[in-house]
Amino acid sequence: MKNSTPLRIEEKIGAALRGTKRTLSAAESCTGGQISHLLTTVSGSSEYYLGSVTSYAIAVKKKILGVPADTIEKYNVVSAEVAAAMAEGVRKVTGSTFSVATTGLAEGSDGRYPEGTVWMAASGPKGTVTRLYQCDKGRKGNIRSFANAALHLLYEQIILK
Amino acid sequence: MKNSTPLRIEEKIGAALRGTKRTLSAAESCTGGQISHLLTTVSGSSEYYLGSVTSYAIAVKKKILGVPADTIEKYNVVSAEVAAAMAEGVRKVTGSTFSVATTGLAEGSDGRYPEGTVWMAASGPKGTVTRLYQCDKGRKGNIRSFANAALHLLYEQIILK
Repeated sequence: MKNSTPLRIEEKIGAALRGTKRTLSAAESCTGGQISHLLTTVSGSSEYYLGSVTSYAIAVKKKILGVPADTIEKYNVVSAEVAAAMAEGVRKVTGSTFSVATTGLAEGSDGRYPEGTVWMAASGPKGTVTRLYQCDKGRKGNIRSFANAALHLLYEQIILK
Repeated sequence: MKNSTPLRIEEKIGAALRGTKRTLSAAESCTGGQISHLLTTVSGSSEYYLGSVTSYAIAVKKKILGVPADTIEKYNVVSAEVAAAMAEGVRKVTGSTFSVATTGLAEGSDGRYPEGTVWMAASGPKGTVTRLYQCDKGRKGNIRSFANAALHLLYEQIILK
């Protein structure tokens, strides 16, 4: 029996979507494109991956993703509500079956949450789920950990029975 | 005299933009988020980096970036014309001072260009420039090289006198 390298989470997502006509999009804030980058390292990802919006600026969250201004004002940018609105917004604008979103603090604090905090959301035909995740690995390490955690949340939604 | 590590291209871009009130956005196809990821590894990038659109699907290129359908039909997706339209589209939708865009073949051929071909564009107040770049490093290596080449094209436009 051969040993085989365990699949990376972005490869497991690809294996779950390929040949099913189900598609995927992403809305990233603090992860800054890393989720999209990981998803597109997978050969054949253009079959199910439609694209993403990285919304560093609040204006981009509102204009392209359609996140309501009052959701941001009421709950702050780093919140379950904004993560959910981003995931639902990118799913709507791209027409994808599933989506994933992140909003958090790769570096620095917002006064409410410490550095290393992210709110993630995954959206699909069964609804939208959110999750809080925290780590303490510095800017680049936090970005990597946030992206990995968000892809796991997405994968759980894709394989949900 | 101390030796210092040369700045990475995304750090040089940050140094050129910081404190100038000039901003940046990206439209990525074949680079799949890697340009956005590199730009946002830089501490303080939220000062000048507004966001990006990764448009793997042609529908996303049309809908979010406003690339005209007849430009894609006439010139093909991997072309100077589509790269320029993507750069101008993301600059318009985000309202950024500068933008960078990529459209190419990280893996496989489109029948006209071989694998490893990318058309890049950078857009700014002085206009839009395009450049063809080719390499042969496999999917992941091509993505890395494309992103690096595109950031260099962008930097040239930022420091243009």
